[in-house]
Amino acid sequence: MTLYIDENNNKWFREKNSEFWPGQEFLIEIEEILYQQRSKYQDVLVFKSKTYGNVLVLDNCIQCTERDEFAYQEMAAFLPLLAHPNPKRILIIGGGDGGVVREVVKHPQVEEVILCEIDEDVINVSKKYLPNMAKELVNSKVTVVISDGCEYLKQHINEFDVIITDSSDPNGPAESLFEESFYSLMKTALKQPDGIICCQGECIWLDLPLIKKLMTISRHLFSSVAYANVSTPTYPCGTLGFIVCSLNENVKLTEPINEKLADELNTKYYTADIHRASFALPAFARQELEDKNK
Amino acid sequence: MTLYIDENNNKWFREKNSEFWPGQEFLIEIEEILYQQRSKYQDVLVFKSKTYGNVLVLDNCIQCTERDEFAYQEMAAFLPLLAHPNPKRILIIGGGDGGVVREVVKHPQVEEVILCEIDEDVINVSKKYLPNMAKELVNSKVTVVISDGCEYLKQHINEFDVIITDSSDPNGPAESLFEESFYSLMKTALKQPDGIICCQGECIWLDLPLIKKLMTISRHLFSSVAYANVSTPTYPCGTLGFIVCSLNENVKLTEPINEKLADELNTKYYTADIHRASFALPAFARQELEDKNK
Repeated sequence: MTLYIDENNNKWFREKNSEFWPGQEFLIEIEEILYQQRSKYQDVLVFKSKTYGNVLVLDNCIQCTERDEFAYQEMAAFLPLLAHPNPKRILIIGGGDGGVVREVVKHPQVEEVILCEIDEDVINVSKKYLPNMAKELVNSKVTVVISDGCEYLKQHINEFDVIITDSSDPNGPAESLFEESFYSLMKTALKQPDGIICCQGECIWLDLPLIKKLMTISRHLFSSVAYANVSTPTYPCGTLGFIVCSLNENVKLTEPINEKLADELNTKYYTADIHRASFALPAFARQELEDKNK
Repeated sequence: MTLYIDENNNKWFREKNSEFWPGQEFLIEIEEILYQQRSKYQDVLVFKSKTYGNVLVLDNCIQCTERDEFAYQEMAAFLPLLAHPNPKRILIIGGGDGGVVREVVKHPQVEEVILCEIDEDVINVSKKYLPNMAKELVNSKVTVVISDGCEYLKQHINEFDVIITDSSDPNGPAESLFEESFYSLMKTALKQPDGIICCQGECIWLDLPLIKKLMTISRHLFSSVAYANVSTPTYPCGTLGFIVCSLNENVKLTEPINEKLADELNTKYYTADIHRASFALPAFARQELEDKNK
């Protein structure tokens, strides 16, 4: 952990990453460190902060804070679920904190959710220190599998209506989730004809070349592809995106398929209007990410 | 200035404010301090950063960085200008860096722009250290007035098509710009029947009670009121809003009045789609800010 002790002897967590966001740092004040261990895959840290509730950190990157986590979780879940006509069987890759599971099970058509997380320690610390995020991991519709996402996908063909990849950044255990082979495996694991994926898509202010690469890969594999932005105060630059792709060329990813349901999900961030709005990209990003073949 | 020297002896500017955003800080790495003086009104700092270009800081709050300033400036200018049928005469209060002026003069119908800035030092350091922001301050359509915004408004009745308030936070010289009396003065300075104001409206993640107060004041004074969000990496929590109000009850603030023009303004952030999308608020903010009388 990169720690900073200020002039009043207060402790701060420093989110430092000279490769991915050089020259900038976000600091959160620590009240108490609750957990700090190296798991089989990564450094796992949970601290109680002064103003953001409990905070989960993997390899020195903030994964979620109790104060603002709902924005990311709701959008990861409902952008794909509300673009699918009948999302029954859902696979979540990563997301060991349980936040996306908690949102997915709110959808009335969902019958079964598989959470495939590589690092069991993340699940265990989340159950203990992020109980409001992890609470639906015990839901009878939910099965937790401890496995590498790529390995799991290879064994599951034509099985899922929606696959959500809730990963950390592409350094560490999530690196393979930003490769063409992974997108290709997700495609074969989807059911025809309406299967949809939704993948953590990094930040337009920091990662435009990577996003462009992933959008190009996605357009080769899927019939409909779009990129959505979410306001996320505790991720670098305050915004994070999702790459949403469907097998069906006639789907309209940028519109909720059921307006009434979209506004009845007991959400704090997601609404039908936010669904539509999230796909409007700033001019500099639109220009880089638009489909030049259309 | 709150400075931090890291373990490698690198210098960082710390955006610390224990009143407005306790428990969190944003840090930008400093390459060289270019200017540091107390003006008549506030501490003025300009530094060259490692990765965000030159950065203007007033009273220890980041006002703009060369890397991301365009998002704020374009939205402050074009949300009101593209909601007005014929925006000829524009008043900008604050905005001494010249960024909003630079955008406003792009609009083909604009004939005259008055910039009313209280602190002449901000204008002078911006001309020297932020030349790409300040470059249109010498445009023949632009007049710069060094004055308190409230005093200026009292002397100008029924004069402006659009008034844009580009202020710092409500502690320091901008404090009076967040009061009902100021909104009332803006109203009387507008031309009937289409006059529009656009005011720096702080952050939904940090300042919801203040925003709610300003929206209530605005609804008492104006016929149409709306709140828009912008993605701003170097403002706290990565997003900032605008309060947009019109005298005309039939105007649709959330739609650009001229779709073609909206997409031809040579912008890096603003587009017609972004105009519409910026008014979609996350559920938690919508609930607090919606007009309960509608």
